[in-house]
Amino acid sequence: MSLQEVRPGLEGVAVAETRLSNIDGDAGELVIAGFPVEELAANATYEESVFLLFEGRLPTETELSSFQSTLAAQRTLSDPVHTVLKDAANEGVTVMDALRMGIAVATIGHDLTVSKAQAKRLVSVVPTIVAAYWRYRMGKAAVAPREDLGHTANYLYMLSGEEPDPAAVRALETYLTTVIDHGLNASTFVARAIVSTESDLFSAVTGAVGSLTGPLHGGAPGPVLDMLQQVHETGDPAAFISERLAADERLMGFGHRVYQTRDPRAAVLERATRRLTSDDDDSTFFNTVERFEDVALRELAEHKPDRALKTNVEFYTAVLLHTIGIPRVLFTATFAVSRVGGWTAHCLEQHDANKIIRPASQYVGATDRTWTPISER
Amino acid sequence: MSLQEVRPGLEGVAVAETRLSNIDGDAGELVIAGFPVEELAANATYEESVFLLFEGRLPTETELSSFQSTLAAQRTLSDPVHTVLKDAANEGVTVMDALRMGIAVATIGHDLTVSKAQAKRLVSVVPTIVAAYWRYRMGKAAVAPREDLGHTANYLYMLSGEEPDPAAVRALETYLTTVIDHGLNASTFVARAIVSTESDLFSAVTGAVGSLTGPLHGGAPGPVLDMLQQVHETGDPAAFISERLAADERLMGFGHRVYQTRDPRAAVLERATRRLTSDDDDSTFFNTVERFEDVALRELAEHKPDRALKTNVEFYTAVLLHTIGIPRVLFTATFAVSRVGGWTAHCLEQHDANKIIRPASQYVGATDRTWTPISER
Repeated sequence: MSLQEVRPGLEGVAVAETRLSNIDGDAGELVIAGFPVEELAANATYEESVFLLFEGRLPTETELSSFQSTLAAQRTLSDPVHTVLKDAANEGVTVMDALRMGIAVATIGHDLTVSKAQAKRLVSVVPTIVAAYWRYRMGKAAVAPREDLGHTANYLYMLSGEEPDPAAVRALETYLTTVIDHGLNASTFVARAIVSTESDLFSAVTGAVGSLTGPLHGGAPGPVLDMLQQVHETGDPAAFISERLAADERLMGFGHRVYQTRDPRAAVLERATRRLTSDDDDSTFFNTVERFEDVALRELAEHKPDRALKTNVEFYTAVLLHTIGIPRVLFTATFAVSRVGGWTAHCLEQHDANKIIRPASQYVGATDRTWTPISER
Repeated sequence: MSLQEVRPGLEGVAVAETRLSNIDGDAGELVIAGFPVEELAANATYEESVFLLFEGRLPTETELSSFQSTLAAQRTLSDPVHTVLKDAANEGVTVMDALRMGIAVATIGHDLTVSKAQAKRLVSVVPTIVAAYWRYRMGKAAVAPREDLGHTANYLYMLSGEEPDPAAVRALETYLTTVIDHGLNASTFVARAIVSTESDLFSAVTGAVGSLTGPLHGGAPGPVLDMLQQVHETGDPAAFISERLAADERLMGFGHRVYQTRDPRAAVLERATRRLTSDDDDSTFFNTVERFEDVALRELAEHKPDRALKTNVEFYTAVLLHTIGIPRVLFTATFAVSRVGGWTAHCLEQHDANKIIRPASQYVGATDRTWTPISER
């Protein structure tokens, strides 16, 4: 047995070539299928972004129309999925656990392959599972999807049962496109690893949802909102921030493993939120948020000058989703509603040039043990 | 963007230190928690093997008794799981897909953590899910688990509804211990990757089952059995093998990515099968098997002298499970019944010294694209 270097987090180890997204953490740039995230998020619908990831180019008008129809036509869930979600709601399981169950069961009656058809079906059903479960949890009936609505509008419609405000739809569309893909993050890598055995897309996305459930990956926007709401009530960001830094506590919403700069997605989401709030009552909350960010960046630069703790995507995710009216407990699931586009695109890419992902390990345990009968132990 | 070496399968990249198992592919040796696999499989019950992986040592008599009771007490499934399995059986989904659904839903009513308690619960319920689903698929009622039976005997009992033959139990026990862990194979790595976000054990095992569903990982013993049964009917292994090699086709059950020798697990399973068949009618099939292996090894050595194509674990897995009477469609699920011990032990190990698994990728796509309005595309 030879000793070798162990790379526990695989940080910096490239596992795949990809044409889906590229992160330049030093420059603070994110490119999604060739487009700077700012350019894509300012223009694309979610359906266009998914098409772009699947096909590597933007759709023509005819292609987009056909793609939208395909997605819209397969939003409904089979009865067994509704049964599982109702059973789960009776027991009060979390939204992410219910989403894992719903996706795992949504294969009933479908062929299981790695194909664009299956990828589209997954993109279609994830919002329906989230919305149906949320309705059941609230003791309400599920709202059936409407084929005449776009992907984003339909998600909001299935949550509330009311036709959504176009400004809210546009803001959520921006969010769904902004976070659709981000390199080989943990859940995306899990999806690729599962597909690498030539398993199916539903298994891959079920695993990815399981990964996203972990607090190190998908869990931060909720606590960010809690913090901002608390500060909004006291009206004193500076006091809150000083207290945290004095206690050497982490400030939620700042710092990112990859970006040394402000997360480029934070800027996109900030602009989208501002557009949404300029003329309504949320502006006071948004003012608190902007004051909070200003003070936090100043204080972090002063107290931790050697660390690049800039605003991350979770900070403005919390603000934007809250402003749209998405309940806090749906933040991570709404992230999954977007990221399923990236997960499935990565699975298709992995499938096209596959090699089973099977790393090595370094054995550090006992050797040459011999059996001792139980009476002699 | 700097170009870097891409390691698509992560072959030879060590991702973790482990005390669970060590493979020496050149020497043809497998060590499980310090014991050569031959030593462990010849002596241990499945419960002892799981305890060994979880605790790093064999249990005392009192500890084993307590461990067995804990496992036996939590074998039953909640109603929502039975409902899902019945719905799945109505649609005829595969056993592995049903297992993924069953595990995903089995969290209802349980706290979700990475802990030995959850690991034990998973080890307990996987056989029950497989057996219940199998019974439903056959149009029968599920057989409730019996607490007075050991883990292995109870699995066979839940499949058939009859108390199993002790010789079959012992043979299956050998199998379950032999394949309980095998380094960072694809599904085990998926489980660790999911837990690395601090997600829960049920999510990890659901993802691992999804990975195992892929034909590159868990799918080979079934086709091996088909081949051996065909040859047993014709009675002419040599003709079958010559034909395959002349057509440059792969011979199922021979060759392994890691082992350059005969897979050490093949020898263990061969001995266990021989013990089981010496006095009964299966011996003629077993004789065919042994003749097949002899001819295959001779022919492979002659026709592919530069490749080390020796008998692998799947060859004797097919023979042993078939001889025990386990239906072919349950082969991969029965592998999961064993491997869940390894998956959960790896999750506990990952959790104890965790770092989020997030590799890099090499971007090879377009750059600097600008938006084209849809009417101009």
